[in-house]
Amino acid sequence: MSVLFFNTMRYKAEDPRNQCNDRFVLSKGHAAPILYAAWAEAGYVKESDLLNLRKIDSDLEGHPTPKLAFVDVATGSLGQGLGASCGMAYTGKYFDKSSYRVYCMMGDGECSEGSVWEAMAFASYYKLDNLVAIMDVNRLGQSEAAPLKHDMEVYRKRCEAFGWNTYVVDGHDVEELCKAFWQAKQVKDKPTCIVAKTFKGKGLKDIEDLDNWHGKPIPKDKVDGLLKELKAQIQVPNKTLCPELPKEDTEPADLSPIALLAPPAYKKGEKMATRRAYGVALAKLGEASKRVVALDGDTKNSTFSETFKKAFPDRYIECFIAEQNMVGVAIGCATRDRTVAFASTFAAFFSRGYDQIRMGAISQSNVNLVGSHCGVSIGEDGPSQMALEDLAIFRAIPTCTVFTPVMQFPQRELLSSQPTQRWGICFIRTSRPDNAVIYSPDEKFEVGIAKVVRQSDSDCVTVIGAGVTLHEALAAADMLASEGKNIRVIDPFTIKPLDAATIMASARATKGQIITVEDHYKEGGLGEAVLSAVGGEPGIVVTRLAVSGVPRSGKSTELLDMFGISAKHIANAVRQTFAN
Amino acid sequence: MSVLFFNTMRYKAEDPRNQCNDRFVLSKGHAAPILYAAWAEAGYVKESDLLNLRKIDSDLEGHPTPKLAFVDVATGSLGQGLGASCGMAYTGKYFDKSSYRVYCMMGDGECSEGSVWEAMAFASYYKLDNLVAIMDVNRLGQSEAAPLKHDMEVYRKRCEAFGWNTYVVDGHDVEELCKAFWQAKQVKDKPTCIVAKTFKGKGLKDIEDLDNWHGKPIPKDKVDGLLKELKAQIQVPNKTLCPELPKEDTEPADLSPIALLAPPAYKKGEKMATRRAYGVALAKLGEASKRVVALDGDTKNSTFSETFKKAFPDRYIECFIAEQNMVGVAIGCATRDRTVAFASTFAAFFSRGYDQIRMGAISQSNVNLVGSHCGVSIGEDGPSQMALEDLAIFRAIPTCTVFTPVMQFPQRELLSSQPTQRWGICFIRTSRPDNAVIYSPDEKFEVGIAKVVRQSDSDCVTVIGAGVTLHEALAAADMLASEGKNIRVIDPFTIKPLDAATIMASARATKGQIITVEDHYKEGGLGEAVLSAVGGEPGIVVTRLAVSGVPRSGKSTELLDMFGISAKHIANAVRQTFAN
Repeated sequence: MSVLFFNTMRYKAEDPRNQCNDRFVLSKGHAAPILYAAWAEAGYVKESDLLNLRKIDSDLEGHPTPKLAFVDVATGSLGQGLGASCGMAYTGKYFDKSSYRVYCMMGDGECSEGSVWEAMAFASYYKLDNLVAIMDVNRLGQSEAAPLKHDMEVYRKRCEAFGWNTYVVDGHDVEELCKAFWQAKQVKDKPTCIVAKTFKGKGLKDIEDLDNWHGKPIPKDKVDGLLKELKAQIQVPNKTLCPELPKEDTEPADLSPIALLAPPAYKKGEKMATRRAYGVALAKLGEASKRVVALDGDTKNSTFSETFKKAFPDRYIECFIAEQNMVGVAIGCATRDRTVAFASTFAAFFSRGYDQIRMGAISQSNVNLVGSHCGVSIGEDGPSQMALEDLAIFRAIPTCTVFTPVMQFPQRELLSSQPTQRWGICFIRTSRPDNAVIYSPDEKFEVGIAKVVRQSDSDCVTVIGAGVTLHEALAAADMLASEGKNIRVIDPFTIKPLDAATIMASARATKGQIITVEDHYKEGGLGEAVLSAVGGEPGIVVTRLAVSGVPRSGKSTELLDMFGISAKHIANAVRQTFAN
Repeated sequence: MSVLFFNTMRYKAEDPRNQCNDRFVLSKGHAAPILYAAWAEAGYVKESDLLNLRKIDSDLEGHPTPKLAFVDVATGSLGQGLGASCGMAYTGKYFDKSSYRVYCMMGDGECSEGSVWEAMAFASYYKLDNLVAIMDVNRLGQSEAAPLKHDMEVYRKRCEAFGWNTYVVDGHDVEELCKAFWQAKQVKDKPTCIVAKTFKGKGLKDIEDLDNWHGKPIPKDKVDGLLKELKAQIQVPNKTLCPELPKEDTEPADLSPIALLAPPAYKKGEKMATRRAYGVALAKLGEASKRVVALDGDTKNSTFSETFKKAFPDRYIECFIAEQNMVGVAIGCATRDRTVAFASTFAAFFSRGYDQIRMGAISQSNVNLVGSHCGVSIGEDGPSQMALEDLAIFRAIPTCTVFTPVMQFPQRELLSSQPTQRWGICFIRTSRPDNAVIYSPDEKFEVGIAKVVRQSDSDCVTVIGAGVTLHEALAAADMLASEGKNIRVIDPFTIKPLDAATIMASARATKGQIITVEDHYKEGGLGEAVLSAVGGEPGIVVTRLAVSGVPRSGKSTELLDMFGISAKHIANAVRQTFAN
């Protein structure tokens, strides 16, 4: 940390988030105190504040978060720092085309996380020579020794096999470290890994290299003696350390709204899947701003991010089948507002990167995640490919806005305003089947504002659908109309925030009766979002149609019917409320 | 597949789930048709049934699931087969001490998944010489070439660096494959990886090694010609293929209930954290049955699975910091009822294995997952370590029972009956703080049956808490009692299934007023579970206290208060309902 902060890295200590600075990510976030100490030494953190560590009114928390200007991504769930660092390094090399470099400090224990090896493969594939990873091989995990202990040669082999320029060094040898970091700067087209053999508690008597000191303070009666020993080792006691300044070769972030060109010219009644429309909309956003970038995990021909890739190949990052790393890279790309990033895969596979998404919220990320192939409506591929819990998991992300667009370009106002509005994480759920366009191109959409898409003076039930099930609700409305029964149909547009006012008003106009219908499990999705919105009001009854049990392969329409969310089932549920 | 099924593997073709059989996992689940074809050749699947592929009334689905007796774990989310295979191989070698071997067929594309490398590290660490992985390196991914294309040497280096005995072979050369699988059987203390260079659509004119054939049937006008060409290559046309039979050295699964010895002798009023009690309870279960095994991801001194490890070191699997693989291994251990597996880590870190858990439901797994350190009550470590979405994500698993035990040994009846009752996946949420024991040792618990822990004839509100917040609710009840206000307090015990009857009865007895309080985000947790249970009833009003926004470091009690879920806030919410 000393060598990095006061020899190797170039940054403005008084402006830690300056776009020209080298980046530093402490992937082993539990070592937060050393990060805070480094910034105290650099002058940005007051030394006296260090004593407020982990107190409720201090931002020097147990693990680093971006509440602190010198932290770009929160860490503390292990194995995530390198993926984010890859995103920063990719952005520096290919989008910003700048000289800033990215340093990521990892623990040896966390190298058991597969996400580390996803990132290792990514970094060498994309020749990220501006990226340096440091593996702090101190041998000790939390509860026992890490699996490879101090077997430095195995670390070397793994790093080299994954395409990295690798130096095995003594992590306590300042000169060796200075040299290794200098050499790393000379290497072209390969990332560098510095595998540092260290001893936990180095130089501290009865502590060095011993178990059971993880996350524990030094006992009070030992502090004075140990401090004295440590201080005695400082060779030039009161020297002020000054980091080198960075090159000024990076533009400030462009935060202007992205002014969209003409919307796609869909016509009402035309058929198109929302996933296909996503590709078109994203390419249009890409035209409007060069800050827009896209990522995918080898599903671009299914999510239709390939539409964007075809238009802007230089702004598309293929992340291959490694969803954790894709989310991490996207979060990294979006740090310091360098890009507006859209990452897509099957919605079901965002479950693979859920811990990264969870940490993304703590990281205050504004990343956009687009999940296609939701629900049983995907058909024959079967349950492993069906997202039926995606709404539940994204709703539980505190900073997340959850879109279930039913038409073909509703994202545009919203997502074009993302860079300035800072929505937090956005999740956009798209569908596989082709459905009719039900809005005209100039329809305006707002987050948290639902659309009443069908209504009359004699509606007896409010039916709320989302995506495919909204179309089923409209079909049910047609069936019922022929029987003289009218229903109100609502498109919530966003599930979170949900437009409680419109839903309540509608429910009151329909005798308190609400039916929700969703291509999702019953838990945590549209139905529970609606219950949440109206649960404080007496006199509202919510009937929920949702998928229960593990589904199976079959035709889309057969499955919608088998799992009780087709027009027929909606119509029956409505008739039931009439009967009551 | 031909060599494996009719030369290498030993199994009873008429009894695919026989405990003595070699195991086969098709990790690249999208290649399901070849699996079905192999079992048709073996005689278990009727050849005519193959034409029902992906139809709604056929179990020959788009991806394999255990609805088919020859499938142990569902696949289709890539990179998961090897982790499950590791669990099977570990069980075979160390628990069953049997000769059955485990074969896992992977695609090259899925080798980008970090979970594969977690499993690679695990298998060599534990010397799983009964495990063979096959990497089918056909170069082509779904949307473009896989990152390493046909660079066989890089695959070799990576496998060797991760400690595997590795053979690079021509995947179309039957003789070479027979030899490699035979050699693999002779190797001691190392798993073997067979890296097979293949060409997708080998031998098919205008298809072999070309893009855009992924998941597409051969066009009808080409079928006859191609079939003719293929058939011409069969050297002995009508030969009946018979696999070799396995050794009979594995006992049938023991499905008898686990009769628990005496419960832990806690006394009412004693203080103990549920996480600590989990360790004690698990060790007691371990005494009762040798089928009980435990896994952890280097958090055993925090989750208290170390209590079990100390008692039964041979039945504890340290999975290190690789939660995806830990879940996969646990699922693998539990296949064919070979073990009753309990895997623990911080509840927040199960988010890392959520895709594996999602697939575990499709796999019909009965695995038990135990998550400690829930909510803001963990204190100083901060939000990265706090599980605040765990209830939401586990509730959305269709086969999952969700326990929020508030006392110290409620799991015992339930979990001891797991092997016979087949609860599906069980999630048990434990807490970090020490709380008072409120039940006596002989208290009986049932899934889906809540406990009314405080009541009077004059209760005006029903308060439902879970874990730490139940104790806060009881403290609020004490405060309010001194003001002459009585409340009913309910411990739901399981959030899913939730005891709707007790909650409804209680709500009716308290003027329809319910307050829920949970150390979890508002979405998808206890509050929404309660809303789900009562949402169909008019006249019930649910007020929800839950954590909103990303929390921070601080003391446990400070955070419960800051985020509005302490006794004080509960008492205020109750007073509010009195005021209305």
